[in-house]
This record gives sequence, C-alpha cells and structure tokens, in this order.
Amino acid sequence: METVKNRRSIRKYAGKPVDEELLRRLLEVSERTQTMGNMQLYSVVVTRSEEVKKRLAPAHFNQPMVTQAPVILTICADFNRTVKWAEQRKAQPGYDNFLSFLNAATDALLFTQTFCNLAEAEGLGICYLGTTLYMPSQIIDILQLPRLVMPVATLTVGWPDEHPEQTDRLPLEAVVHEETYHDYIPETIDRYYGPKEQLPENRHFVEINHKETLAQIFTDIRYTRKDNEAMSRGMLEALKRQGFLD
Amino acid sequence: METVKNRRSIRKYAGKPVDEELLRRLLEVSERTQTMGNMQLYSVVVTRSEEVKKRLAPAHFNQPMVTQAPVILTICADFNRTVKWAEQRKAQPGYDNFLSFLNAATDALLFTQTFCNLAEAEGLGICYLGTTLYMPSQIIDILQLPRLVMPVATLTVGWPDEHPEQTDRLPLEAVVHEETYHDYIPETIDRYYGPKEQLPENRHFVEINHKETLAQIFTDIRYTRKDNEAMSRGMLEALKRQGFLD
Repeated sequence: METVKNRRSIRKYAGKPVDEELLRRLLEVSERTQTMGNMQLYSVVVTRSEEVKKRLAPAHFNQPMVTQAPVILTICADFNRTVKWAEQRKAQPGYDNFLSFLNAATDALLFTQTFCNLAEAEGLGICYLGTTLYMPSQIIDILQLPRLVMPVATLTVGWPDEHPEQTDRLPLEAVVHEETYHDYIPETIDRYYGPKEQLPENRHFVEINHKETLAQIFTDIRYTRKDNEAMSRGMLEALKRQGFLD
Repeated sequence: METVKNRRSIRKYAGKPVDEELLRRLLEVSERTQTMGNMQLYSVVVTRSEEVKKRLAPAHFNQPMVTQAPVILTICADFNRTVKWAEQRKAQPGYDNFLSFLNAATDALLFTQTFCNLAEAEGLGICYLGTTLYMPSQIIDILQLPRLVMPVATLTVGWPDEHPEQTDRLPLEAVVHEETYHDYIPETIDRYYGPKEQLPENRHFVEINHKETLAQIFTDIRYTRKDNEAMSRGMLEALKRQGFLD
C-alpha cells in the first residue's frame, strides 16, 4: 500500500539499463492477473532498439520519454493468438466483433496495471502513455500487428532520474457513490474541484494560457472537441481494419 | 510480488464484514493510479444493500458471488463529472465521443486493477466479473447511471472462505514479442497451448461436454459467435444511449 501511496509517474530515466531477468520476472508475475476465461487476451511488444523507439515516438507526440527510456512496452488487446489456436483445433471462433475487442482490451489493461504496481514496487519508474489510443494505425504499422490485435497501452520503463511532486487527487467522496449514482450538483462540483483550482501551479497555468478557468485549459487546449472527434474516427477505422468492427 | 504470484480469484466469502474504513483506505490509495490529464475519469458505485445486490445479480448471470459477497463494486467510465465541472466553469467540453469513452474506460480499469492488487495484499478475496460488459443497459438502469457514465468492471469483495487451486497460465514466450509482433505458427501454437490442453481438468471438461478439443469448449459453449455478436450490438446501443457514440 505504501508504494502506491507514494507513487508518481516518472518521465526522466537514469542511464542504468533495465535488467532482462527483472523485466521477465515482472511480466511473468503480471500474468497472474485475472483474465477472461483464462484466455489471456493480450500481447506485449517489448522495444529496446533505438531505431524502433524513434519510429514509435511520433505516434506519442514525440514525448522525450519514448526515446530516452531504456524499455518501451506496448500492450495490445490480442484475439489473434486465441483464434489461431481455435482454428488449429477444429473450432470456429467468433471473436471478430466489438465486444471481443472490449474483452481483450480489458484483459490487456488489467495486466498492464499489475505490471505497473509490481515494477514501481521494485523501484522502477513508469510513465503511462495514453497517446496509444490517439493514432493506433501508426503503431499497428510499426509493430506489425496482425488482424485482431490492437495496441491499447504504452509504458516507458526505467530507473528514475527525477523525484517530481505528487499530483493532487479529488477527495474520495468525489468518485464514490453509495448504492446508486448520485449526480453532481453545483455545490458538490465547487467543493470537489475548488482545491484543485486553487493550486498555485494550476492558477499559473490558467494565467500563462490567458484563460479564465482551469476547465478551459482542458476543453480548449489539452483535450479539444475537434481532436477528440478526429481521433474517434481514427480509432473506429483502426478497429475496422483490425477486424473488430463491421 | 509474492501476493500477486500466489493470488487466485475468490468466489466464496466468509461471514465477516468488510470494514468500512479499510474499504475507504483501499479506494483512496487506488486513486494514486495514473489517470489521463489527472482528470480521474471514473466513478465507483459501492453496493452493500441486499436489495441492490439482488437486482444486480441477473446482469451477472446470477453468479452466486453477487448476492453472497459483502461488498460489490461497480466501476464506471465517467465523463459526466468532468463535463459538469467544465460547464459550470464557462468551458465547452467535447467528450461525447468514442475516444472519450475509451479514455475513461482505461482510467477506470487501471484504477480497478490497483484496487485488486491492494485488496489482495490485505488478504481480501476478489472476483472480477467480466459480465459487466455483457448487459450494460441493465446495470445502467439499476445504478441510475447518467449520460456519459458506463459500467466497465464489477468486483465482488470479501474475506476468503475457500482456497482454490491456482489456474494455469501460458508461458511468458506466448505473450511477449521482441521489437515487433511475431505471428504464431502451428508449431508455436502447439507448444504454448499443449500443456493447457493436457491438464486433467481440461481433458475432463472436454469429455463431459462431448467435444473434440478444448478450444471448442470456448467457441461452442462459453463464448459463442452468436452471443458475442448480440452483446456487441447491445454494447454499441448502450454507448449511444450514454452519449459516447453517434
């Protein structure tokens, strides 16, 4: 519990390599994560080569961690392996559909998070790249992912070379609902988001971006409707291309 | 690492209640999980009431854990809270789209898995119910989930009253790819799946179901094309209903 309580995402890594045996052990123990019908609907592509890192970087908006981290893991929702097994065993698989993508993505993300928890407990630093969902087609091409395989998460992994401040979190009351969902009202929104809005770094951020509120930083700059809609189309196209959607 | 290595899903729970303070602490520490732009795009609905458990059970195929476990957690992808915040702060959110659903589902699933790892480290037993994705509309109704909130995971939580055998896993080689994806060939499929097929319980399972191969148990009985296609339609409908898809 203490490791998780004190964790922070790490974006700067020391030169020290990540030992092959340690990485192997962490991935192997992560396989104990619960998985649908024990099918293990995921694959992990391990990138250590400088060349592949450079090719992956643009798909992650050239964030420097992608080329600087000793190891990049791209975790994929994978029904390809299960389907190949079924076809080789006189069985007729029906996993080229949307639900199967979500089932495999779930398996992949739960596996990913166990890996994060274990790696951080060993002192490794991790940064989770949400950008994996933004331009999946590029990643599919670079890593040569076949039909029924979709990238869903990327981790940069290395030994920490920074000790950033911990970021804030909403109070527990803001995310927990007893028995049924109790929708938010203006008073609860003010109470839950007020402290975040008052943080000096967030006030500074609003000021230098010439915005009126912190929320506008999210809606107008970081995660805009225009980008989200374009990337939604790209994601749906990629799901069709990989055989998970008609 | 030891807790994860020795974990098993727990479906039978002792009468001992799950202390409110312990649950609160586990959820609070789980909030440290990385989250997109620190938006925390999830909510947790905590069910302790017998009546709500009974209403949830059919959505989970009446698996007995749902009514027997002292606590049920339904973890939801939630953009409703963030959108309500934005609207109250003169910002114009654009999160009623498919990418935003996937971003929120990711946040929710990573949070869920940290909770699982922490809870199991405290000795609690967990069963993850993948059925959450099968009939989401029922769960939306019962838990009164508003627009831009989708259930993505359910956990039954309690103190273990069983010690089941650990289930098998594929060898690490089966799920890891170096640098690029190396597709499976008949020889690797045989090597990776052979040990699983030879397990006495799996051979027995094939026999009593009058099937020829273990794979047929999956394709013909447990996860059929017909069910997957029907549930895919239901899931896409639910995403439209909740405002995440046009």
